[in-house]
Amino acid sequence: MQHLKHCQGLAQVFLIRSQSSRLSKSIIPSLSVWDGNISSRWRSTGGHGRQKYFNDRLPKFRFALAGLLAGSGAVLAYKLQQGKVQWAATSAELPVAETSTPPIYTLEEVTKHRSLDNGVWVTYKGDVYDITEFVAIHPGGDKILLAAGGALEPYWALYAVHQQEHVLEILSKYKIGVLNPESYKKQESANPSDPYSAEPTRHPALQINSLKPFNAEPPASILSDNYITPSVIFFKRNHLPVPRLDPKTYKLEIEGLPDGVVSLSLSELKSRFPKHTITATLQCAGNRRSEMNQVKQVKGLNWGIGAISNATWSGARLRDVLVYYGFGPEVEAKAKHVQFEGLDRDVTGSAYGASIPLNKAVSEESDVLLAYEMNGEDLPPDHGYPVRVVVPGVVGARNVKWLGKIVVSDEESKSHWQQNDYKGFSPGTDWDTVDFKSAPAIQELPIQSAITHPAEGTSLDLSDKELTVKGYAWSGGGREVVRVDVSIDGGKTWHVAKLRSSDTGQHPVPPPPGRAWAWKLWEIDIPVPHRAQELEIVCKAVDNSYNTQPDTVAPIWNLRGVLSNAWHRVKVKVSV
Amino acid sequence: MQHLKHCQGLAQVFLIRSQSSRLSKSIIPSLSVWDGNISSRWRSTGGHGRQKYFNDRLPKFRFALAGLLAGSGAVLAYKLQQGKVQWAATSAELPVAETSTPPIYTLEEVTKHRSLDNGVWVTYKGDVYDITEFVAIHPGGDKILLAAGGALEPYWALYAVHQQEHVLEILSKYKIGVLNPESYKKQESANPSDPYSAEPTRHPALQINSLKPFNAEPPASILSDNYITPSVIFFKRNHLPVPRLDPKTYKLEIEGLPDGVVSLSLSELKSRFPKHTITATLQCAGNRRSEMNQVKQVKGLNWGIGAISNATWSGARLRDVLVYYGFGPEVEAKAKHVQFEGLDRDVTGSAYGASIPLNKAVSEESDVLLAYEMNGEDLPPDHGYPVRVVVPGVVGARNVKWLGKIVVSDEESKSHWQQNDYKGFSPGTDWDTVDFKSAPAIQELPIQSAITHPAEGTSLDLSDKELTVKGYAWSGGGREVVRVDVSIDGGKTWHVAKLRSSDTGQHPVPPPPGRAWAWKLWEIDIPVPHRAQELEIVCKAVDNSYNTQPDTVAPIWNLRGVLSNAWHRVKVKVSV
Repeated sequence: MQHLKHCQGLAQVFLIRSQSSRLSKSIIPSLSVWDGNISSRWRSTGGHGRQKYFNDRLPKFRFALAGLLAGSGAVLAYKLQQGKVQWAATSAELPVAETSTPPIYTLEEVTKHRSLDNGVWVTYKGDVYDITEFVAIHPGGDKILLAAGGALEPYWALYAVHQQEHVLEILSKYKIGVLNPESYKKQESANPSDPYSAEPTRHPALQINSLKPFNAEPPASILSDNYITPSVIFFKRNHLPVPRLDPKTYKLEIEGLPDGVVSLSLSELKSRFPKHTITATLQCAGNRRSEMNQVKQVKGLNWGIGAISNATWSGARLRDVLVYYGFGPEVEAKAKHVQFEGLDRDVTGSAYGASIPLNKAVSEESDVLLAYEMNGEDLPPDHGYPVRVVVPGVVGARNVKWLGKIVVSDEESKSHWQQNDYKGFSPGTDWDTVDFKSAPAIQELPIQSAITHPAEGTSLDLSDKELTVKGYAWSGGGREVVRVDVSIDGGKTWHVAKLRSSDTGQHPVPPPPGRAWAWKLWEIDIPVPHRAQELEIVCKAVDNSYNTQPDTVAPIWNLRGVLSNAWHRVKVKVSV
Repeated sequence: MQHLKHCQGLAQVFLIRSQSSRLSKSIIPSLSVWDGNISSRWRSTGGHGRQKYFNDRLPKFRFALAGLLAGSGAVLAYKLQQGKVQWAATSAELPVAETSTPPIYTLEEVTKHRSLDNGVWVTYKGDVYDITEFVAIHPGGDKILLAAGGALEPYWALYAVHQQEHVLEILSKYKIGVLNPESYKKQESANPSDPYSAEPTRHPALQINSLKPFNAEPPASILSDNYITPSVIFFKRNHLPVPRLDPKTYKLEIEGLPDGVVSLSLSELKSRFPKHTITATLQCAGNRRSEMNQVKQVKGLNWGIGAISNATWSGARLRDVLVYYGFGPEVEAKAKHVQFEGLDRDVTGSAYGASIPLNKAVSEESDVLLAYEMNGEDLPPDHGYPVRVVVPGVVGARNVKWLGKIVVSDEESKSHWQQNDYKGFSPGTDWDTVDFKSAPAIQELPIQSAITHPAEGTSLDLSDKELTVKGYAWSGGGREVVRVDVSIDGGKTWHVAKLRSSDTGQHPVPPPPGRAWAWKLWEIDIPVPHRAQELEIVCKAVDNSYNTQPDTVAPIWNLRGVLSNAWHRVKVKVSV
C-alpha cells in the first residue's frame, strides 16, 4: 500500500504538465523539461513489493475483473477509483516538483511492456504511461491488459465513459514520458474508426442517459399513453455498439447439447419452430436509479422512471429449440444454467453475456423466446436484430440482444454483468466491503409501480376538484399486479386505482397463473381536499403473491443503484 | 332499513331482562312481567317489507355467506355486526319500556318457525328469539338457518366465538319470549356433547389464541431454537374440531378425473406412490396480526410472530397421484384448480375447504404433497392425521388437514375461506366497502421476517458491548431468502445477518431455483453505541426476486389483518 502511495505521489509531479498536454499536443516538446531520473527511479522500484501488493489487493478487487466491458459499471468504478487515488496521493510523502525533459520512447519500446512482470505501458495521445500498479485497481478489471503495450484510444472509443476529466486525471498520475513523433504518427494512422459510427437513428423524444453505448428512455409523460409501447420509444439499454448483422449470414450457435455444437440460420429458426407470441414488459435493473442518487450517490446511468416498456414479442420458444436439438433428462441431470452471448463485441472480441437458471429456460410455462419480431415487425437494430432472447419476468440484462450463442451449462455466465454487476446489496455495504459473490445475480425483479401523470412540480388548476393520476405497475416472475393504491396525502390515506391491460378498455383474456408478463396501466380520479395547496402523490402496487413496495428509498439504497422500487412520490402544487 | 331499526328498538326493551336471565335461569318466572302485545305486534309486522329489505342488504352481505364455519372470521364479523346493530338501535324511535309477562312457547311452536317465510325462531338457554331479520346480516351467513326452529347451543358449542358478551347482547335484541319449563328440560337433555371433547393434548408452552377451535403459537423465545420446529410446538391453526380418524377405514376420494370418483386407502397411498420428503415452512395468513391491531382494530385471531413454523413433510406427490388416476392433457385443457376438502366438519356436515391453481398442483417442481408424515413420524392429530395437503410456498389455509376429498375442477373452492376470507385489501377498504370478489385468494405469501431475540421491552446488560439479535426469514412461492438486514437504530443504519438452513452449522445442499420452501434462521452480533439507553431493533429480509418488506404497518393494514409483513421492530433498554 505504501508503495502505491509513493508512486502516486510521484505521479502528482506531472499533473500540471499532463493537463496542459490535453490542451495542445502540438506544443508538447517546447513544454517538456524532465528529469529522466524520475522515471528511471520509478522503474527501478516498480517491481518492488508488487507481488505482495497484488496479493493484498486482488481479493478485494476480484469483483472488478472483466468490467472493462461495463458501460455504466465503468462510470461507477472510475469515480470510486478517483477517490482512492486522491486519498493515496494526499497521504503520500511528496517529492519536490522537478522539471526536466520527459523520456522519449519508440513504439517498439512501449510494445515490450505488456505484462505485469515486464510492466504495463500504454499510450494516449502521444504520451506514455506505466500503469502496472493501476492494473489491480482498474475498475474494469484486468481487461485493461488488452491495451498493454499499445494505444488506449481504441478501447476508450468503445467506452465513452473514459472520456471524462477525472479519468484523464487518474491516467496522468502514471505518465512516464512521450512517444517520439514518428511512432505517434504511425499509431494515429492505425487507430480504428469510431465503433459507434453505424448506430441506428433514434427517436427525438428519447431522453438520452448515455450516447456511447446508447442508453435512453421515453419521457414519463408519454410512457403510459400506450399499453403496447411503440418500438421507437421503447427504452434502449445497450452495453456496446449496435452490431449490424446480415440476416442471410446470421448464425445462432448452440452448445452443451449431446450432438455438439449446433448452428442455426435465421430462416431455420423461423421455419423449424412454431411462432409463439407473448406480451412482456422489460425493465432495466437501474430503472428509477435517479431516486437512489437523491439519497446518496450511486454508480450507474441516472435513469428516471422510464427504463421500462411493454411490447409484444414473437419467436421460437427456447424450450422447443433446445428439445429439438437433444435437450432431455440426460442434459438436465447435469446442466443448471443456460448462457447467452450477444454479437455485440468490444475490440477484443469479448461479447455481452448473461445466463438464466435452467428451469426458467426449459419450463413449458416460462415462455422464454428466441424472438425475431417486436410489435409485429422485425426486431429493430436497437432491440437485437435479427434475434434476441426475451426472458419474461426477468431483469432486462438477461434478455440478451443480437444473440450469437446459447450454451447449456452447469455454470452461470462468467460475464462481468452476471458475476459483478446487476446484483443487490444492503444499504450498509459500500465499495470497500462489497463481495459480489455474496449476492445472487438478479433474475426476477420485485414489484414496481410509478406515477406518469402528473409530473413532479406541476401546478394544477383544480377547478373541477378532482385530480387524475396515471401510471404503470408491474412485477417480475409472472406475478400479476392485482392492486395499485394511490395517495395524495403522502401515504396517510389510500385509494384503489383502476387497472387496465389494453388500450381499448376491453378486458383481454387474463394470463394463466404465474405468466402475467405484461404491466398494467392504472388511473384514478381523486377528490382534492378543499384549500389544499400542495399534494404529495404516492403510488404502491401489490402483486398476486401480495408482495408490495417498500415505503422509502434509503433502506433499499445500494451501491449500484439497482432495484429501486420504493413508493413513487410526486409533489404538485394546487392553484385554485 | 327503517323496519329493522324499529324491530331492534323494540328489542332494546328486553335487554336488562335478558342479561339477568344469563345470571340465573331458575328465577326467570318471578321476573317475567310481559305485555304479550309486543311480540304479537312484532310478529304481525314481521313480514312487512322483508323481501325489499333482503334485496337491499343481500348483495352487501354476500361475502359473509357460509362464514358460520369461520373461527376467526366469526369473531370479526360479530364485532362488525355489533357496531351495526348499535347504530341501528340508537337511531331508532324507541318505544316506552314496558314490563309484562313474556309469551311462553312450547318446543312445538318454536319448531314451526324454521324458514324466512314462517319466521326464524331459535332458543338459547330457555329463551326464545325471532331472528328472522338477523339472518341476512348474520356474519356467518345463512348457515344460521340450520339452527332454525331449535336450540343454538349445539352450534355455539362448535364455535366458541359466539360465547362473548357482545354476541349475547345482539341476540337479546331479538327475544320474543321463553320456553315453557317442560320444553326447556326436554331440549337440554337432547343437547349433544361438546364436539371438542376429543381434542388432543397440547404442549403447555403453546400460547393459545383460541381454544375452540384450537389456535396456538409457540412463544417467540423458543421459535428459532430449532431449525426444524418440533411438532408439539409447531403453530396450530384449526378451523373446526379435530376429527379423530381411523387409519384402517380412512378413504381419500378424488373427483374430476376421467374415470370418475376414485377412492384410495391410506395403505394404498403409502404403497402405490414414491415417498417424497421436503422441508417446508408453513405460515398462517394472520401471522403478526397483532401489529395491525396496534394501528387500528382488525378482525381475527391476535397472532404474534409465531404463526409460522418449519417441518419436514413426507408423502406422495399430488402430481403422481393425479397422473396415476388419469390426469393428462384432456383434463388439463379444462381444469384450472384443484380443490381440497377436509374431514373436519361442522354439525351440518360442511367441511373445511380450499383450492390451489392447477399449475401449482401438477407442476413437477411444485412439490405439493399428500403428506402422512411430519418430522419423520405419523402426522399428529392437530396437523391432519392421517393425511394432509402440504402446498409449499403457499399460505397455511390451503394446506388442508384431515384430507377427505380432492376435486380437479374449473372452479376455485366455493368455501368461505377461499371466497370470502384470506384475501388482501387496501388500507382504505372497510367492511362497508369491501368486495371480496375484487381480490384474489391468497396463495403465495410475501417476504417475511421477524426478531425472536431479544424480546420487546427487555433490559439488556451490555457489558460486552455487543447485542446478539436472532430471528427467522421466509418467502412464499419457493423464493429463497438471500439477505436479512438488521438495524439497532430504528432503520437508519443496517447490518447483514448470518443466515442458516440447519441446526448443525453445516450447509445443506441449496434448494433448486424456485423451490426454497424452508425458512432461514438468522443471527448477528451488533456493537452497541456508547451511552445508548434504548435500542430500536429492526429486521427486514430480501428474497431472490429481490422483493423486500415494507417499512411500516399502516400502509399495508387491511380489515382482516392478514399479510402483516412490515419490518419487525423490537425496542429494548440498555443497562450499562
